[in-house]
Amino acid sequence: MADQSQRGSDVFVHPQALAESSRIGDGTRIWAFAHVLPGASIGRDCNICDHVFIENDVTIGERVTVKCGVQLWDGLRVADDVFIGPNATFSNDKYPRSKQHDRPIEQTRLDAGCSIGAGAVVLPGITVGARALVGAGAVVTQDVPARAIVSGNPARIVGYVDTKRQPAVPVPRPVTAGEVAPTSVRGVSIHRLPLVEDLRGRLTAGEFVDQIPFAPLRYFLVFEVPGKDVRGEHAHRSCHQFLVCVRGSVAVVVDDGQTSEEIVLDRPDAGLYVPPLVWAVQYRYTADAMLLVFASDHYDPSDYIRDYAEFQEALKKKT
Amino acid sequence: MADQSQRGSDVFVHPQALAESSRIGDGTRIWAFAHVLPGASIGRDCNICDHVFIENDVTIGERVTVKCGVQLWDGLRVADDVFIGPNATFSNDKYPRSKQHDRPIEQTRLDAGCSIGAGAVVLPGITVGARALVGAGAVVTQDVPARAIVSGNPARIVGYVDTKRQPAVPVPRPVTAGEVAPTSVRGVSIHRLPLVEDLRGRLTAGEFVDQIPFAPLRYFLVFEVPGKDVRGEHAHRSCHQFLVCVRGSVAVVVDDGQTSEEIVLDRPDAGLYVPPLVWAVQYRYTADAMLLVFASDHYDPSDYIRDYAEFQEALKKKT
Amino acid sequence: MADQSQRGSDVFVHPQALAESSRIGDGTRIWAFAHVLPGASIGRDCNICDHVFIENDVTIGERVTVKCGVQLWDGLRVADDVFIGPNATFSNDKYPRSKQHDRPIEQTRLDAGCSIGAGAVVLPGITVGARALVGAGAVVTQDVPARAIVSGNPARIVGYVDTKRQPAVPVPRPVTAGEVAPTSVRGVSIHRLPLVEDLRGRLTAGEFVDQIPFAPLRYFLVFEVPGKDVRGEHAHRSCHQFLVCVRGSVAVVVDDGQTSEEIVLDRPDAGLYVPPLVWAVQYRYTADAMLLVFASDHYDPSDYIRDYAEFQEALKKKT
Amino acid sequence: MADQSQRGSDVFVHPQALAESSRIGDGTRIWAFAHVLPGASIGRDCNICDHVFIENDVTIGERVTVKCGVQLWDGLRVADDVFIGPNATFSNDKYPRSKQHDRPIEQTRLDAGCSIGAGAVVLPGITVGARALVGAGAVVTQDVPARAIVSGNPARIVGYVDTKRQPAVPVPRPVTAGEVAPTSVRGVSIHRLPLVEDLRGRLTAGEFVDQIPFAPLRYFLVFEVPGKDVRGEHAHRSCHQFLVCVRGSVAVVVDDGQTSEEIVLDRPDAGLYVPPLVWAVQYRYTADAMLLVFASDHYDPSDYIRDYAEFQEALKKKT
Amino acid sequence: MADQSQRGSDVFVHPQALAESSRIGDGTRIWAFAHVLPGASIGRDCNICDHVFIENDVTIGERVTVKCGVQLWDGLRVADDVFIGPNATFSNDKYPRSKQHDRPIEQTRLDAGCSIGAGAVVLPGITVGARALVGAGAVVTQDVPARAIVSGNPARIVGYVDTKRQPAVPVPRPVTAGEVAPTSVRGVSIHRLPLVEDLRGRLTAGEFVDQIPFAPLRYFLVFEVPGKDVRGEHAHRSCHQFLVCVRGSVAVVVDDGQTSEEIVLDRPDAGLYVPPLVWAVQYRYTADAMLLVFASDHYDPSDYIRDYAEFQEALKKKT
Amino acid sequence: MADQSQRGSDVFVHPQALAESSRIGDGTRIWAFAHVLPGASIGRDCNICDHVFIENDVTIGERVTVKCGVQLWDGLRVADDVFIGPNATFSNDKYPRSKQHDRPIEQTRLDAGCSIGAGAVVLPGITVGARALVGAGAVVTQDVPARAIVSGNPARIVGYVDTKRQPAVPVPRPVTAGEVAPTSVRGVSIHRLPLVEDLRGRLTAGEFVDQIPFAPLRYFLVFEVPGKDVRGEHAHRSCHQFLVCVRGSVAVVVDDGQTSEEIVLDRPDAGLYVPPLVWAVQYRYTADAMLLVFASDHYDPSDYIRDYAEFQEALKKKT
Repeated sequence: MADQSQRGSDVFVHPQALAESSRIGDGTRIWAFAHVLPGASIGRDCNICDHVFIENDVTIGERVTVKCGVQLWDGLRVADDVFIGPNATFSNDKYPRSKQHDRPIEQTRLDAGCSIGAGAVVLPGITVGARALVGAGAVVTQDVPARAIVSGNPARIVGYVDTKRQPAVPVPRPVTAGEVAPTSVRGVSIHRLPLVEDLRGRLTAGEFVDQIPFAPLRYFLVFEVPGKDVRGEHAHRSCHQFLVCVRGSVAVVVDDGQTSEEIVLDRPDAGLYVPPLVWAVQYRYTADAMLLVFASDHYDPSDYIRDYAEFQEALKKKT
Repeated sequence: MADQSQRGSDVFVHPQALAESSRIGDGTRIWAFAHVLPGASIGRDCNICDHVFIENDVTIGERVTVKCGVQLWDGLRVADDVFIGPNATFSNDKYPRSKQHDRPIEQTRLDAGCSIGAGAVVLPGITVGARALVGAGAVVTQDVPARAIVSGNPARIVGYVDTKRQPAVPVPRPVTAGEVAPTSVRGVSIHRLPLVEDLRGRLTAGEFVDQIPFAPLRYFLVFEVPGKDVRGEHAHRSCHQFLVCVRGSVAVVVDDGQTSEEIVLDRPDAGLYVPPLVWAVQYRYTADAMLLVFASDHYDPSDYIRDYAEFQEALKKKT
Repeated sequence: MADQSQRGSDVFVHPQALAESSRIGDGTRIWAFAHVLPGASIGRDCNICDHVFIENDVTIGERVTVKCGVQLWDGLRVADDVFIGPNATFSNDKYPRSKQHDRPIEQTRLDAGCSIGAGAVVLPGITVGARALVGAGAVVTQDVPARAIVSGNPARIVGYVDTKRQPAVPVPRPVTAGEVAPTSVRGVSIHRLPLVEDLRGRLTAGEFVDQIPFAPLRYFLVFEVPGKDVRGEHAHRSCHQFLVCVRGSVAVVVDDGQTSEEIVLDRPDAGLYVPPLVWAVQYRYTADAMLLVFASDHYDPSDYIRDYAEFQEALKKKT
Repeated sequence: MADQSQRGSDVFVHPQALAESSRIGDGTRIWAFAHVLPGASIGRDCNICDHVFIENDVTIGERVTVKCGVQLWDGLRVADDVFIGPNATFSNDKYPRSKQHDRPIEQTRLDAGCSIGAGAVVLPGITVGARALVGAGAVVTQDVPARAIVSGNPARIVGYVDTKRQPAVPVPRPVTAGEVAPTSVRGVSIHRLPLVEDLRGRLTAGEFVDQIPFAPLRYFLVFEVPGKDVRGEHAHRSCHQFLVCVRGSVAVVVDDGQTSEEIVLDRPDAGLYVPPLVWAVQYRYTADAMLLVFASDHYDPSDYIRDYAEFQEALKKKT
Repeated sequence: MADQSQRGSDVFVHPQALAESSRIGDGTRIWAFAHVLPGASIGRDCNICDHVFIENDVTIGERVTVKCGVQLWDGLRVADDVFIGPNATFSNDKYPRSKQHDRPIEQTRLDAGCSIGAGAVVLPGITVGARALVGAGAVVTQDVPARAIVSGNPARIVGYVDTKRQPAVPVPRPVTAGEVAPTSVRGVSIHRLPLVEDLRGRLTAGEFVDQIPFAPLRYFLVFEVPGKDVRGEHAHRSCHQFLVCVRGSVAVVVDDGQTSEEIVLDRPDAGLYVPPLVWAVQYRYTADAMLLVFASDHYDPSDYIRDYAEFQEALKKKT
Repeated sequence: MADQSQRGSDVFVHPQALAESSRIGDGTRIWAFAHVLPGASIGRDCNICDHVFIENDVTIGERVTVKCGVQLWDGLRVADDVFIGPNATFSNDKYPRSKQHDRPIEQTRLDAGCSIGAGAVVLPGITVGARALVGAGAVVTQDVPARAIVSGNPARIVGYVDTKRQPAVPVPRPVTAGEVAPTSVRGVSIHRLPLVEDLRGRLTAGEFVDQIPFAPLRYFLVFEVPGKDVRGEHAHRSCHQFLVCVRGSVAVVVDDGQTSEEIVLDRPDAGLYVPPLVWAVQYRYTADAMLLVFASDHYDPSDYIRDYAEFQEALKKKT
């Protein structure tokens, strides 16, 4: 047994458990047949259930639950408040071969407050974002963005936590002069554009500055996106955008740091205005979806905020 | 260790097992590294294998097998003769978060004689029906009807146990006057209806009482059924039905309590006569399936038997 | 010139015309460069315009107009009040070869009050029904039913004369208990049937006698009708019918002898009730159309009235 | 025979012709078996061939050719330089019935320099525009725009006279920075836009002013245009446009008054720049075509020149 | 009137006809209001009906029938035994403009024994092949091959005269070793090739020399053929071919000079062997048709016989 | 504890492990809470991790790794160098029922050097081939071929180990005379064939011996292969092949024993030449794929080498 000098004062270790590490926080409990190797570090108030195995190069934050039958391998970094369901399975080698340890192990990161469902499998090198939810039995083969909900094999995003879902742009009647409806997210608005139809076809139009609140310096079209893919996942510092799904449909999640809302764009006479400093994600593209985007600025990589924490910082600075 | 006064006389507990409950039936064996909490109740002649963990609020019937690596959580109710394969995984919280126990736990019910395949995952709040079979690796997200076989992620019904499968209504040649073929299920018959075709199209017709053995007081059409869904799953006390799949195809399982048979309806000139007191299930609807049903009675909710056990009771009373 | 003893007293023949027949009715005018052979028979008050040619075995009724550039060949039978537009063209041999006259000529019949558009071509052996309208430039390769409007090459039915067109069954909102709307045709009504939908699919049902005004002794399904084809075109003496288009769409023309209306059936929760002694035609079947018909009587060929004139007779007798 | 006082001095009338009108211009020839009624007016240097019939309320301009077997009915207005092919057929009543003359006759207008092909049929009330070409055997059911070529039954536009056809935007290789190619029409250019593709799909972008020679104040999308239809047919006084066919394909005819060219747009990374005072027509849309247009100005009806003659005037003023 | 010295001795000219040519053959009749210009040449035993107009540069063979209302323009060459139906219309200028005669006239050729249906329109520059049949109302825009039957606007081939039609390769049962069936055409055989299918798919194979009676030196694939197009129309002097329609279907007409048969190829396990000196035509391609052809020789243009008459010559030489 | 006489001299057994078998090879380590039953046989240098359970009728080769949470059931045969990831799950009864052991257990075979990913489920009776890789979370329902990589539920082949992937035949420009490009696999070459297109469609041709390096004695077509299926998996001793994918696409893996490459065939004018003694596999067929293969020899079963080890032997003999 390891030197127990760093162990918290009221750590509980079941008589049938093997707790070889000295770095175990106060209030943490380790149950029967669990086995913690000497190098592991476990924070306060954790719950390590029966039949769990924890290797050496593993760091576990505070208030983490590890249910029965789970192994945490070298390279795993578990932040605070993470939940790991029973028999959830990790690994640290994408192409494992017996007795071949020449490749460096791949780190897996479980960010603060995320949950891994029962029996889920997480591939090596994955990051599961803050507060994300991995469904039971999901097989995670790609990084899971913060707050995303994933399920299936392979796992796909099926929603976002704490996000109001608006089924689709409501379209009560034809609009001839354009109309603007606010959303619950600061600055984001849904624009109905005029739609003219006659025997020769249909036409929809948008006037810049009048109906679309900026003059574009750039447009782009996104298309042939596999249904499983997610695009966007960033905010802009100063660029305004206006999104129109000219064919098929796509779901857009917009988030001002306080409120989050999901809007389905599914008709060419509806647009979504996204001002700077709003986080936006596009997903659930249909096979035929074609998304037209107007941008107020020329392309500038430095205008993109691609990290959600950085986005939250930028919001604070602004106010 | 718990008070052992209620324990059966010949319970076997491996020296490396922890069996803290006193309610363990005669003939039950508990193997190495298994851990049974004090509140659990286990019936006779069960087999609890290595590395199993059983929480307190768990009830297990008789002759149950729990293979290695399984955890049975609070809220699980396991009936007699259930088989739970190795590393099968349960849970009792749909949106688990570490250290948040404010939501009530969700019960999971495994009915008599069902089997859960190796490595299967069963979501919270699910009922797996009597004698149902959950395939290895299946992720069960919906209730599984009695006797159904499910597999995949998410799990879908792929068959019914002990049910003879008739690939499709045999169609050896055009029929002009109608023909009737019995099935192996009491009273159920397959009816070939006349089909006339010429350059202007095709026409199929049925004469009531002559070709279809009752006069209808009602018809209904079922359509746009998602392929994963199951309809029917009931018997009628006195109503006769006649089913014609006018487009696409659908599989119908009919069951007289003794014999069960699956018939694929896939052409508009074939009908299935289902008399009262026959249990019927429709599933494997193709996307375009359209099922036309004639009923001998007006709609009457009290005529439906929707519980299989109740159906078996009704059969007994009748004889 | 022929013997003129049967000629009407005030027949006008232009000095530059050749009118060799003696059977020309009172009030008929024959204009410049027209040529009527001796065997032709022309009724009263006809107008035979410039450059027309009329062969011997041709019979023309009263008040017929034959515009310029038309030839009427042996075998043509033109009833009263027919209009033949300029350069309309007939023939009497399907596989004409020069100097080969071994096949019998094929008769063409233009029934009372029909019109042949400018430049139309009518193939040999065709009957154009009473009051039918052949559009300009149409190439008629099949019989044209009474009152039908045809156009195109080959000509297809595009409507019926004097028939009010109701675009489709109006569907303002879901209906739970059924609803009945009258039409402008005596006794014919449009029935909205209850439609129930949930996640497992959709179901529409009809109760006989309550929602559908008779008890069926027969049903039939019509499907795979080529879009160009017309079905029905008959009335029943005593059978009631109820039509539901369970898939695709079909246009039904109903006619009580006084009023005619066209109703498009295009949804499974809408039915059309057709009582006895209403003439009905179905056409404009979409490729996927599937028409379900309930009949109050068993099949009886003697119940069908397939001739419109006979239908008009039957109506008179009844009143 | 009519009073011949208004007849030109060297009118030729064949001995077998009937020329009853006195208003026939100098140099006009009227051939055998033709028949001109007294009210008709025929200009100079016309050629009226054998077996032609001309009613009273008909006006014919100068240098018109009417080939054999044609009738010109009351209400026809034939401008200068028109060619009418043999057996071409007109009419002046959409729903002709024998002896029913209660509806007013419908006028048909053949504008200057147009040609009507052999055996073509022109429905009542049609205008055939200046220099248009109606193909042999065409059945014209809609107005024919100036300079359009139509054929078929019903007739559809298949091209424009004197217009160079460029098969499609040539695409020799991927382009990363954009490229511009001139056309034969003044100021019109074809722009290749960068196309980026990766695992998540494809993206094409255009930088305004740099790659597209103006900053847009307006965009519009045109879609679901039936293949038979034509859009555009106008020039702008001051508005610049940039057309991108983001899906399917469309043919664009551009015309600077001197030169005319047809360009097929069929890919999302190719655009067409159309400056002011260029006449543009779009047609031959595929079923799935979706045309995105950027405009340099806000919508202003007074900026549109919709009449080709007015367009020619505007060009003259400018130079 | 023209010099009549070359006129046949028993030519009949109706008193109201204008027959200005002296070259009119014995036994030919010219009827009322017909007009033949001086330069025309007409053979023996022809029948020129009322209201026909024949220009100068026209040559007509023997036993030709020209029904009423037809004009034959300069440039028309009509061979023996041709039938021209009433109001059939020809022209000799594709882009006619009034008073513009700068383009040379285009010749139209009607080969021996062909028939032009009533009201058909034949565009300038067309050749209608020997014994071909142009249906009533057809608008002929392309050459019509010998013996083809065409109809519609534009006219498409719908069959071949005197050709036995075999609906499709008969497929009574799976074949494992291959089978050969003769046709009614000399040397041509239908080969059923082995088809093996299992859960992994289907496989069909052909052994050269054993099952296919030659060793190929070349293969080619024909695909994306518009449905309206005809391919083949030639015979080979020494090359053997073997045709397999691997997708979709195509009709092949084979002809040994004596017998003609049409075979529909519509499955990948059926091939058609065509030996040298058999005339073959492929048409009625479905949109997805893909025709695989094996050839016994390398490509050699001199091996092709593309003229049916030359083909008949080659057959004679051989015997 | 079992008789330890057959145990290797330096076997390590953790104090908390239960190692009841005496047949455990030198250098093998057995970790905490693992349980090995007396009948099991384990080779040298194996690593049996925590919480593993090994039944009696199990044979394990040398250098095998069994990660935590795995059970190896009666009937499992594990060859040398196999890796079994954490929580991977096996079973030996397809239709398990509690307490019913009447059916014989089904053997599962893991061949030399294969790896089973974390959390994978392997159904009873499966063989996983040598060096194959079963992805994390895969549910294996069919045998896995040697060297194949599988993933998903149910598991499908997604690649082959150590195989260079060439995205598709590069097509820089049209080719008129044919072109040949080598691959990294000995003797295998990619052939571009001439493609000719005109208004009537497209044609591609190949000259044997000139463009394709042998004269075929056989051809076959492979089609309607379900996308999940694999074909080929063999080498020929003396037969040459030439593969053309005439529609859709297919991936071909070719392997000369030293080098392995995957080539996607996706156009009818590209072919792949495969000489004798090259191992070839075809998979990833699109739904519409149709593969045409030419073979230099007649069908001869003895020419096929269907076992990879035998293929390797044949290569050695040759050199």
